[in-house]
Amino acid sequence: MAGFVVDPAFEGGSVHVADWPLCQLRLQDDARFPWLILIPRVVGAVELHDLSPADRERLMAEIVRAGEFVRTLGDQAGRPVDKLNVAALGNVTAQLHVHVVGRRRDDGLWPDPVWGREGARPYDAETRAAVVARLIV
Amino acid sequence: MAGFVVDPAFEGGSVHVADWPLCQLRLQDDARFPWLILIPRVVGAVELHDLSPADRERLMAEIVRAGEFVRTLGDQAGRPVDKLNVAALGNVTAQLHVHVVGRRRDDGLWPDPVWGREGARPYDAETRAAVVARLIV
Repeated sequence: MAGFVVDPAFEGGSVHVADWPLCQLRLQDDARFPWLILIPRVVGAVELHDLSPADRERLMAEIVRAGEFVRTLGDQAGRPVDKLNVAALGNVTAQLHVHVVGRRRDDGLWPDPVWGREGARPYDAETRAAVVARLIV
Repeated sequence: MAGFVVDPAFEGGSVHVADWPLCQLRLQDDARFPWLILIPRVVGAVELHDLSPADRERLMAEIVRAGEFVRTLGDQAGRPVDKLNVAALGNVTAQLHVHVVGRRRDDGLWPDPVWGREGARPYDAETRAAVVARLIV
């Protein structure tokens, strides 16, 4: 993965958590939702078809793993999520990345998607560090 | 896949195109975007982790294939798409399904996602039939 860099656009709204076999795992800095981002460490990848078939399988496995983490976290009060939302959009930041977001019927945006909406609520530093610590296992 | 049925909610806004090895392929009836829906023919599946690892790999392959079809279609004027949007949401209809949507910077909703917005523009019957015919190969 020589030459791989994360688009600086991700630095503003999310924090690095870990490097999984394929992806960099990041926590979206929005306390409203348990929200992870997977960024495959593949230079130049924008669409899923830019990944090799083997990397696509790795990505799928890491999406499912991220979903398990999101369900383990639950919402900020630890309540279970009702639905996972998984998406590779990239209209704003083209670098291939996959959102894995835990949604609840009472989360304020349900049933609408979380993207393209205002209202992000950054974690306080202590909570953010605690969430990241739970994700590093 | 005995016992598999498509949630009737899909019948209103999309049409059956084909049955691929894992998924039923549907065309979203919205001429604003080349927009396909993949519904794994697995009874009771709601989340990606409800699929077996083998079916997850099949799904990923069919997502990539659907993306190729979307890029081949282009927009209604045949112009190339700028970005694929791939998402498994399910907040409205829980049955596991994956959207594969072709987006252009001038498509009117860019860069916002297409879900949870008004304005669907059904195809006229002739155009819809022509698009479906192009997808059956």
